[in-house]
Formats: sequence, C-alpha cells, structure tokens
Amino acid sequence: MRRKVNFNAGPAALPHEVLEHASDAVLAYDNSGLSILEIPHRGKEYDAINEESRQLVKELCGLDDDYEVLWMHGGGRLQFCMVPMNFMSQQDSAGYIVSGHWAEEAFEYATHYGNAQILATSREDNYNHLPIWPTNISKELAYVHYTSNNTIYGTQMKETPECNVPLICDMSSDIFSLERDYSKYSMFYAVAQKNLGAAGATLAVIHKDLLQHSRRTLPPMLSYRAHAEKDSVLNTPPIYAVYTALLMLRWTKAKGIQAIEKENTEKAKLLYNELERNSKFKLTVTRKQDRSMMNICFTTKYKRDEKLFLDFCTKRNITGITGHRLAGAFRVSLYNAVQLSHVKKLVQVMQEFEGKPTV
Amino acid sequence: MRRKVNFNAGPAALPHEVLEHASDAVLAYDNSGLSILEIPHRGKEYDAINEESRQLVKELCGLDDDYEVLWMHGGGRLQFCMVPMNFMSQQDSAGYIVSGHWAEEAFEYATHYGNAQILATSREDNYNHLPIWPTNISKELAYVHYTSNNTIYGTQMKETPECNVPLICDMSSDIFSLERDYSKYSMFYAVAQKNLGAAGATLAVIHKDLLQHSRRTLPPMLSYRAHAEKDSVLNTPPIYAVYTALLMLRWTKAKGIQAIEKENTEKAKLLYNELERNSKFKLTVTRKQDRSMMNICFTTKYKRDEKLFLDFCTKRNITGITGHRLAGAFRVSLYNAVQLSHVKKLVQVMQEFEGKPTV
Repeated sequence: MRRKVNFNAGPAALPHEVLEHASDAVLAYDNSGLSILEIPHRGKEYDAINEESRQLVKELCGLDDDYEVLWMHGGGRLQFCMVPMNFMSQQDSAGYIVSGHWAEEAFEYATHYGNAQILATSREDNYNHLPIWPTNISKELAYVHYTSNNTIYGTQMKETPECNVPLICDMSSDIFSLERDYSKYSMFYAVAQKNLGAAGATLAVIHKDLLQHSRRTLPPMLSYRAHAEKDSVLNTPPIYAVYTALLMLRWTKAKGIQAIEKENTEKAKLLYNELERNSKFKLTVTRKQDRSMMNICFTTKYKRDEKLFLDFCTKRNITGITGHRLAGAFRVSLYNAVQLSHVKKLVQVMQEFEGKPTV
Repeated sequence: MRRKVNFNAGPAALPHEVLEHASDAVLAYDNSGLSILEIPHRGKEYDAINEESRQLVKELCGLDDDYEVLWMHGGGRLQFCMVPMNFMSQQDSAGYIVSGHWAEEAFEYATHYGNAQILATSREDNYNHLPIWPTNISKELAYVHYTSNNTIYGTQMKETPECNVPLICDMSSDIFSLERDYSKYSMFYAVAQKNLGAAGATLAVIHKDLLQHSRRTLPPMLSYRAHAEKDSVLNTPPIYAVYTALLMLRWTKAKGIQAIEKENTEKAKLLYNELERNSKFKLTVTRKQDRSMMNICFTTKYKRDEKLFLDFCTKRNITGITGHRLAGAFRVSLYNAVQLSHVKKLVQVMQEFEGKPTV
C-alpha cells in the first residue's frame, strides 16, 4: 500500500526517518538486547531517553534550570484537570481566555476546582476570530490560561501576550512550530500527537516558582510537584510515546525551529493564497491576522461541492482533510512534519478541481 | 546484539511474534497507507482496534454486556485516584486489604477522597505473607479494594474472596495468568506492561451497576461513566499501547487461559522447587500457599553471594532479576510471555552457581 499524503489534525504525519527508528526499536532497542517495549523504566536505557528528551525541550525552548520538564500521561484533558487542581484553591480565581473548543473545555474543567472566569471569548462568533486579549487582568488571579492555536477553528495567537499574573498556555497544536519566548510562561503543555510524536504522552513545562505555589494536598499522581521530585518517573511512564517524542525532538533540533517556522510560513502561505484565489473555496476565519499556520479551515463555496472535493482528494491518495465535527467542511493540518511537496500537491489538486464543472 | 533472557517485573518480556507485528505496524498499518502512529483516533482503523480489543477482554473473562471495558491512560496510580473519586463520596467509607506496597499506595490515595479503612494487612511482617481476608465486612462500605498479586513481595491471592459489597481488584500483575471468576468483581483493572502489552495503557472493567453509583460530579476525564459513554474514546487514547495490548489479547486467546495457567504453574513449580533444593538460596515468602506464580522473590543464603549471583546471571545473558528496592535481593517475574525454556535455563544457571565455592 502506497503511503498516503496525510493532513490529519492529530495523531498526525510523522517523518519517515522517525518512523524507521521507531519501528526498529520495537524489535531491538539500541544495545539493550530487548525491545523498547520491554526495557525497564528504572534502568539506564530509559534514564537516558528521559534525560535527553527533557534536556532537548529546554534547549529548543531556550530555558534554563528554573523550569521543570515533565512527561505526563493522559492527554490534554488530564492537564485541564491538573492545572486548576495544582494552581488554584477552591477559594481562588483564575482567568481563562476562551478562543475555541479546547480552551472552553479547559475552562469548564477548571470550574470544578475553584472560581474559573472567562476573561475574553469569541464564542458568540463561533470562534471565527481570536478574542481581544484583556488589558485589565486582576492581580488577584491565580493564573491566566489560554490556548495558542485552535485546531478546530483554525486561529492562532502567534505572539505571546502580556500578562501580570502567571501565564499558562496549552500549546498542544503549535509547539515548536515557530519561534516563541518561552520564558514568558509560568507553564505550557502540549500533547504529543501533533508536533511532538505519537499519542500517549503529554509534555508539561513548569517554572519552579509556580511549582512552589501548589495550592492543594493531592495524591502524588495528580501533583506536578510530586512528578518533578521524581524527575518525571513517578510511575511507569508511557515509554514508547516518550521515545518517539525524543526522536521528533532530535529531528526538530536538526532542522532548527527558525527553519521550521520559515517552512511552515511558506506551506501556509501557499495554501491560503490558493484558497483566496480559487473560486470553489471559502476561508472560515474572518480576520487575516488570526489565521493559523497549523490548521487551515475552509468550506466549499457551494455545499454540493463538499463531498465531490473530498472524493476527488481521496482518489488522489490525500487523507485527513475533513473538518472537525463541530466546524464541519475542511481542515488541512500543516504540522512540522508535513512536507512542502505535499502542500504543493494539494494546491495542484485544488486547481484541478476548480476546472471541473460543479454538477 | 543477542536477545536477552528477560525476567523484568514490568515492562516485561513480550512474545517475539507480537514484537514483529508491533514493529511492522509502525512503518505501515494494515492497508491504511499510514503508520499506526499516524492513524486518527476517530477513524475506521482505530474503531476496529478499540472494538476488537474490548470484545476480546470480555470473551477472555467470560463476561457479558453488563460490563464496560475501558482503555485508560495514566497507569495504576491514576486508577488509585479514580476508584475512590468515582465510587466513594467524602462521607463514605471503603475498605482496603493492604497486602503489599501497591495495595498500601492505593489505600493512601483513597484517604484523599473519603474514609478509607484498612480491613486487613500484613504490613507488620513486611508483607511476607497474605493477610487473612476479613469475614465481617460492613455492608455500609462503598466497596472493598484488594490487589490480587504483589509484585514486590511475591504473594498472590489466586482464589476470588467472598465479599458482600462491591469488590474491586487491582489485577495489574496477574490478569489472564490463571482462570478466575471475573463475574464476582464489580470492577477490576490492570496496567498493560505485564501480561497485557506495553506501558501506556490501563485496562478497567466495570460492572454497569457500579457505574450507575458514581458518587461525585467529576470533569469527564476523571469520570468512568464519561469514558464509558464515549466507548472508551473520550479523548485521544494511547493508540499504540492499546494496539500492542490487542496483539497480546489475540496471543492470549490463541493459547487459551487454561493452557497459560498450566504453563505458568509448571514454570513457577520448576523455579520454586529449585529454590527449595538449592543450598545457596532462600525464599522470602513464609507461607507456601501464598506464593505468587508471577513474581518469585528470594535472597541468597549468604549476603556475599548476592552480587556474585547477579554477575553470574548477567554474564549468561539473563536480565531483570534484581529485587525491587523495597524488598532487595532477587525477583524473577514469570509473566505469561516468559518461556518455559527460559526458566529451565535459569534453573540450570542456579545449579551451576551452586557448584561454585562461596568466596
């Protein structure tokens, strides 16, 4: 079976060389005489994976030892629980910027653990633009949480906003996709299955000052501080997911984030330009400056073209372009590992489709 | 590098055919045109993996549709949190049988969420035998929790105890290792990295009656009911860990649990017999009927032999026999995938070691 051109929103495309290493390791890992699936989590092999991966995250983010890098289980939603559990008490307030579905869900989860407040939202416009960042943030807030990129609606906050209380960001869908001043954050986190590797691990990077302000007595598994005290091996970690993340981190370092950003900009520009030009399609994000470089959402101008275009792409070996059920129509995800040549192919297919008569 | 003879306690040895399939899938999964690491979690490929694996668990356990089978993130410790969160309120009491380190940790986690009580323990004897199962369990308890096999201390409760309130069991280290009446449990759970597959997924099987008695309003990620309502795909699951579990479930079904139990009994008997006979070693579990078939714990009679024997084994390509730091000395894990021939080899090495003079 020929490999497909994959624009899935996550789990997403991975580089071929990463897949080759990841496949080999399952048969025999390094010189361990074991499969990567069989190595113990308290042995020298995993120690090295854990150490190198956490150092690489710091290096790529330009962070020093003031930050703890943790590999967590449970996907983004466990972070939606753990952030308020750890950093606000039942009496505290925290601010949430609700710019999309995941931001909204993070907010809803937080309401279980204290007084979570929506500071800004674009929900009334079905998230087709970013909300205006608030200027009058109360110093009493335990933290402000936002989502840098909205996979479902295709908007992205590329600049780091100003914030006078600890700033926490869900970077699940755009981490390492562009240069960013990571030192402005008290915490950021990202699920692995987009720019970082395979589903099953979640990265959490936390400033030690924030860690010291843990607000509740929690069982260790739900306490960031407990995970940090155990160097991110509190319990058996999702070893294989962390290993594939390490392979992606090495790949990211070899390319360099500056070069990755340049290529991501080129990929996105190519597709946005075509979507503006092509008479059959329509972009859904209303403000040009809010457009995501990672997830490009659009519809066909005529509803009847929707299924036709999907079939047209399927026949040409292109997969993963269906929009999220909440947004519908189309979404093309251009994560770091998606090749420029694949975007060119899609643009060519769109042009070919434009030439077809609409039935 | 030659494959090692692997007696690790978990992550543990996997069958070669499982590793081959698991490795191939990373390059190309089935006819998807994608790697298993790239398939979407809401597509036909993962639907099939999720469905087949959950059906196989029911089939192997002889359970009907009264039970929900869930793939969870987060290892055993997240279950230590979720069991009390879901099934006891802050006003409820629940009983814990504390027969080893993990049982004790499950109890400690539960104290955060209500009145957890120790009903029986052998802690005062450093867990070198099983505690006596209590006969006077109060009907007021929300549930009783126990651990069927103690990996660290090498004891195992092979029979299912009688219980007049919902019975919840951590079967992480002996699920599918022997025939068991699973219908006597309101819930059981098991981490994947022993008899079930690779680290990163945890199986939770819950009777629908218990599910209906959820005690708290929880954010969906921490609610078993919410996971069940979404057919175990509430969020992006640890796809690869579930897939390797599916491969192990197929392998388990092909062998049959009856045959697996027979072989496990033979493996354990071989090693226990040698440990009773061999003048250099000493078993640590005091009651013969409490001995585990999964984890066999022993010391050398003379402390000075400890390092000698470890080196002796290392030179003979045997790995994973060091005891847990809490118990020390040696632990040999004989999970389902450990071959009889490997146990024979270990016994032979022990006999060879016996012939050596103690320095």
